[in-house]
Amino acid sequence: MRNVEKYTTQYFMPPVPCYDWTKKEYVEKAPIWCSVDLRDGNQALIVPMSLEEKLEFFKFLVEIGFKEIEVGFPAASETEYEFLRTLIERDMIPEDVTVQVLTQAREHIIRRTFEALEGCPRAIVHLYNSTSVAQREQVFRKSKEEIIRIAVDGAKLLQKISSEMGSDFRFEYSPESFTGTEMEFARDICNAVLDVWKPTPEKKVIINLPVTVEHSMPHVYACQVEYMCKHLDYRDSVVVSLHPHNDRGCGVADCELGLLAGADRIEGTLFGNGERTGNADIVTLALNMFSQGVDPKLNFEDMPSTVALYEKVTGMHVYDRQPYGGKLVFAAFSGSHQDAIAKGMKWREEKECDHWTVPYLCIDPKDIGREYEGDVIRINSQSGKGGIGYLLEQKYGFVLPPKMREDFGYAVKNVSDHQHKELQPEEVYEIFRREYLNINDKISLVDFHFVRNDCIHAAVTVKIGGVEKEIKGDGNGRLDAVSNAIKENLGIQYQDLTYTEHALEQGSKSRAAAYVGITGKDGRITWGVGVDSDIITASVKALFSAINRQERKKD
Amino acid sequence: MRNVEKYTTQYFMPPVPCYDWTKKEYVEKAPIWCSVDLRDGNQALIVPMSLEEKLEFFKFLVEIGFKEIEVGFPAASETEYEFLRTLIERDMIPEDVTVQVLTQAREHIIRRTFEALEGCPRAIVHLYNSTSVAQREQVFRKSKEEIIRIAVDGAKLLQKISSEMGSDFRFEYSPESFTGTEMEFARDICNAVLDVWKPTPEKKVIINLPVTVEHSMPHVYACQVEYMCKHLDYRDSVVVSLHPHNDRGCGVADCELGLLAGADRIEGTLFGNGERTGNADIVTLALNMFSQGVDPKLNFEDMPSTVALYEKVTGMHVYDRQPYGGKLVFAAFSGSHQDAIAKGMKWREEKECDHWTVPYLCIDPKDIGREYEGDVIRINSQSGKGGIGYLLEQKYGFVLPPKMREDFGYAVKNVSDHQHKELQPEEVYEIFRREYLNINDKISLVDFHFVRNDCIHAAVTVKIGGVEKEIKGDGNGRLDAVSNAIKENLGIQYQDLTYTEHALEQGSKSRAAAYVGITGKDGRITWGVGVDSDIITASVKALFSAINRQERKKD
Repeated sequence: MRNVEKYTTQYFMPPVPCYDWTKKEYVEKAPIWCSVDLRDGNQALIVPMSLEEKLEFFKFLVEIGFKEIEVGFPAASETEYEFLRTLIERDMIPEDVTVQVLTQAREHIIRRTFEALEGCPRAIVHLYNSTSVAQREQVFRKSKEEIIRIAVDGAKLLQKISSEMGSDFRFEYSPESFTGTEMEFARDICNAVLDVWKPTPEKKVIINLPVTVEHSMPHVYACQVEYMCKHLDYRDSVVVSLHPHNDRGCGVADCELGLLAGADRIEGTLFGNGERTGNADIVTLALNMFSQGVDPKLNFEDMPSTVALYEKVTGMHVYDRQPYGGKLVFAAFSGSHQDAIAKGMKWREEKECDHWTVPYLCIDPKDIGREYEGDVIRINSQSGKGGIGYLLEQKYGFVLPPKMREDFGYAVKNVSDHQHKELQPEEVYEIFRREYLNINDKISLVDFHFVRNDCIHAAVTVKIGGVEKEIKGDGNGRLDAVSNAIKENLGIQYQDLTYTEHALEQGSKSRAAAYVGITGKDGRITWGVGVDSDIITASVKALFSAINRQERKKD
Repeated sequence: MRNVEKYTTQYFMPPVPCYDWTKKEYVEKAPIWCSVDLRDGNQALIVPMSLEEKLEFFKFLVEIGFKEIEVGFPAASETEYEFLRTLIERDMIPEDVTVQVLTQAREHIIRRTFEALEGCPRAIVHLYNSTSVAQREQVFRKSKEEIIRIAVDGAKLLQKISSEMGSDFRFEYSPESFTGTEMEFARDICNAVLDVWKPTPEKKVIINLPVTVEHSMPHVYACQVEYMCKHLDYRDSVVVSLHPHNDRGCGVADCELGLLAGADRIEGTLFGNGERTGNADIVTLALNMFSQGVDPKLNFEDMPSTVALYEKVTGMHVYDRQPYGGKLVFAAFSGSHQDAIAKGMKWREEKECDHWTVPYLCIDPKDIGREYEGDVIRINSQSGKGGIGYLLEQKYGFVLPPKMREDFGYAVKNVSDHQHKELQPEEVYEIFRREYLNINDKISLVDFHFVRNDCIHAAVTVKIGGVEKEIKGDGNGRLDAVSNAIKENLGIQYQDLTYTEHALEQGSKSRAAAYVGITGKDGRITWGVGVDSDIITASVKALFSAINRQERKKD
């Protein structure tokens, strides 16, 4: 690509090796979650949320289980200010929830922020200034010392105003653009702020380490986080928080590895909404933990409602392939995947498995309120016998014999391939009905009777070309007798006949489904299906279906 | 969440520590890229691509620079078979491109695959069978030995048919569901296949290590890949390939860390299309490298066309926050971000920087064919003076004085906040025009003349309430004289007057823009702007704009 020489790395590795995190494999405990949907998410929307939308979203975030919610940047716009005032004045903040507000380290903004907080029962005041080399040089044009002064002055002002107000608000500091900051300087500026606030284990403060723009691989961030965890003063009084963005598509990985590296808290959003490529996706992070047996302490049991509410208030669309939430993320179109899923589900039932291990499904879709049918087994030209058979069984109760399943699978694939579209379950059933079920056109079954003595004697009335005719045959069983009557009187040839049947519904009024396969001279099996409340009638209908289908092929 | 006890980890760590990869920070060299858009991507579409769509996509992948392209699973559907035949028969495979076809390790499928390859100049035949504990137990119900037998028999058959055909096809083997396989078994089955194929450095084979379903964090995969790289026989004759899916949202991280761990090749798709949550996104991987100064050897210089073609042939939508490709991924709505970007761009110009370090933009959007205007600086209620001023300057040429920029910023924010919508550049300009430019309603400027001797004498004709009137005043400069005439004759009060101006266009016919701020008794500045081909007229118009705006406020 042109202009590649214009780029170089823009992050800073710690000055000492920080690889202890590599020894851990997965996150064993839910972090403190902080939703920044109403702030970072909101400021990245083409149209920021209205007051009413923010209120609805806030209630929903509380329902999901968030205990810390950044509600805005009250000094930044009238709507954000009004929103916080409304939460306070309508007494909408539950006792176990703390709201968080963002403020730059500038005096008039800090003062306006505290005005907005008047009467708030609990709050985290989140102070930030930018610390990266690029921002120091280009935006602030200030020295390291001057940048530390901004942070320290802001920290002092927070403390002063808070104490004037008699409030008990908690504090958070972010060295914004942390990952583009020399690690020693990031350490120094955080420690300078901590020296102002002097946190205790009883009154901790939050140090938040943003990946403001993702410039490195996720393991670099893990090393940076580990360095900070090891070099922050007052460590037992500090909650280390992560706030990654997703420019390199690694926001989730940043969080996960950062948690292994010692962080306690995550700031992120539902479905990763947020500036540019978005924030870390808390839905994915939480359900990743869930999928490994760790309770995330957030409730995503009703994913369809979560998606619907999110889409309504933000005006964003949850991407079809967004983990856990997207429309297609449990979908199996391909034959081999469908087959493996069907077998895995059966195995799970048979073995009463303790743990979920069904192939191609990272979790059971039902655990987050999604359905197998429609969400999982979907039929198009890539699909195969396994999925198509599974669908027919789950939705319509027909358990096709394996070889017939293959035959039917090809029939369905061909329809989808030629019509160039996905087939809905009803369309699959319609193909089944039209192709196999109670086919009675060329040689029609009218009536039949049996007499039993040494063997079974069948008398079958058939109609061919509008003319009725009685034919007779003997056999060991009823179907055998009918089959012989057909073979001996109608000049119809086939070798083997295979037969299976099962009840279609539960209870005494159930109907039976019968499957008959007849093998022609060429060795190919022609299948027919019969359904009737009488089991014998079902089997005779199945045989006539097979015979009629074989006759059709001659045309 | 309910049912969390149903889950546990489903992956296998290597039996020995494999952490050498942690010592590397970034990928220093482009891997071999293999696009699986036409196979893995295609089989995950609601409606798989038609023959024509596949042909168009294939040509485009070649243009981007892919040298290896998996074109399908020819034994799986008629369309896939026809597609490969068409490529071969129309001679559409360039000399430096190798097509790849997927086949299960089953005899009739392998035979059909080779039929499809008849006459193909170059191909990689990609053989797979599933090796994970779950698949062995639930789907195949076979022992480890039997699973190895499937792979080895398949490998032998590939070799046999290929040699019968006299072809020189390359081979690839995937232990599908690799990450859910015990690492020693994965090593054994790959080595068993290698023992059949006996690759040489001149005729390498590909061992592909799929994350068929993402069950672990990305660093676990890196350890698995490192283990395989260290324990595969014939290592100098093996291309180690990665094929991650994205169920945990870490497909990109898997690839990046897997490359550090020794892999040579990536199988992925554009924008991460593919089964369920998708495959690894090659656009993101390639541009992540680019952003660190490594040439990815794929051309994404025209991202808008890439997105358009992808959306057309797949019927998928590129998510608005998809790294590099999504509509919103360079957008800055927030005031502080816009301000920093504007300053960063200026710094870049002033300092003639070698490297791209503009805050909040991971790369220069222009390098991938995107524009600043429309893509980057976008205006809504979250925006601030920096961005709004930058937009007015870039698109309309007005360089507002810093304090006026603040005044204008608030005006624009308020409109957006109250109208609850994003403002287009034309709408921002319209607010500017309506509010500040050549305002001449209450006290209209009709004409003016100057006489110069010891000082400047101004005679100004104004119209107030329909009545024309001449007023006179003296001053050190022309604007000063007009200002004094107004103050002394019209009873209009203000203290300071600040003034700046600049040419609006280049060349002798350019117009001038003048900005006047007058400070009222309350200390607040009222701004006015004048535009005229004559520089003096522009400044007088600006003064009248400011005075008229001050008069308006009295209403």
